[in-house]
Amino acid sequence: MENRGLLIVISGPSGAGKGTICKALLKKDPSIHVSVSATTRPPRIGEVDGENYYFLTMEEFKERLENEQFLEYAKVYDNYYGTPKENVMEQLQKGKDVLLEIDTEGALKVKEKFPEGVFIFILPPKIEDLKSRIVGRGTETEEDMEKRLNSAKEEIQKIHEYHYGVINDDVDRATGDVQSILSAEKLKTERIYPQWTEKYT
Amino acid sequence: MENRGLLIVISGPSGAGKGTICKALLKKDPSIHVSVSATTRPPRIGEVDGENYYFLTMEEFKERLENEQFLEYAKVYDNYYGTPKENVMEQLQKGKDVLLEIDTEGALKVKEKFPEGVFIFILPPKIEDLKSRIVGRGTETEEDMEKRLNSAKEEIQKIHEYHYGVINDDVDRATGDVQSILSAEKLKTERIYPQWTEKYT
Repeated sequence: MENRGLLIVISGPSGAGKGTICKALLKKDPSIHVSVSATTRPPRIGEVDGENYYFLTMEEFKERLENEQFLEYAKVYDNYYGTPKENVMEQLQKGKDVLLEIDTEGALKVKEKFPEGVFIFILPPKIEDLKSRIVGRGTETEEDMEKRLNSAKEEIQKIHEYHYGVINDDVDRATGDVQSILSAEKLKTERIYPQWTEKYT
Repeated sequence: MENRGLLIVISGPSGAGKGTICKALLKKDPSIHVSVSATTRPPRIGEVDGENYYFLTMEEFKERLENEQFLEYAKVYDNYYGTPKENVMEQLQKGKDVLLEIDTEGALKVKEKFPEGVFIFILPPKIEDLKSRIVGRGTETEEDMEKRLNSAKEEIQKIHEYHYGVINDDVDRATGDVQSILSAEKLKTERIYPQWTEKYT
């Protein structure tokens, strides 16, 4: 695994701001490859195939599912969403780091198939912030928001299944934390040992 | 272990520049506590007890050895050297990070007693650099230098027993690597999990 890239999995409850951190990370390190999900839902106006999503027909999706071409998938209402495996693997083989922004359920499914990934859990500084971020979206009913908050609390309980936890109290600082994690992961002896013994002996 | 400091063990073959990196690290983060070794060798001019070393009589050293007051010790020619345990533990309990700069033999002895430490191996960019740094000291015979180089090569073989490896091609960059490692270690979920569950549930 010495020259392979890192699979970076950024997850956390909705409202934790993981999307913001991913964007900031990519700005600081544009060499990171972003994994694009596949979906059966129709494209919205302005969405580009292969950029926002790979838009597949139900038939195409199910065929790929049968051929185990997804790292993970989920059905949300009537639509399927999945992480295409081949593209991720190809980039990692080339030595490129691949970023996967994904909900907590998906992240743990990916971990089953790819435990050598770097699993990072993002959280807002206080549970109150989670609440205000969820409320702030303003697109949901009281009941929906309560549901979301409770599910966020449940998700946080699973943090021990991740390798690292980053508190998103400040986007710059939190992004710096993620960068430190990636640097450290690349300095682990199991990654560099094969190169080193060749070089120094 | 959530609020405990990190035991940072910086090691590597002689000539790798681990002392330089430790100095640079302490300059960047003066909150790190440096572990001071104990020795039975007499102080040299300018050396201060409790700062360069704890200078002990042979009797004092052996008594502490019997009472298991050292994390590791070694006999070099007629003198004993050791890492006092109590002081290290006290600082870690207070939540302070403790830095231990130590040869590779000592580092692995510390690892046996304290595997939860962060073990970092420092190496020069090329084996030739190791040679030139050893030669550059100019205080040794050809035979001594050959011996040192061979022992360095042997030491490098043990790198897989460390957690991280940092190549000292540039002191600033290498020190940054060590800082990233420390940041990442503090973000590991097993460290933050107990605090988080308290905070978010």
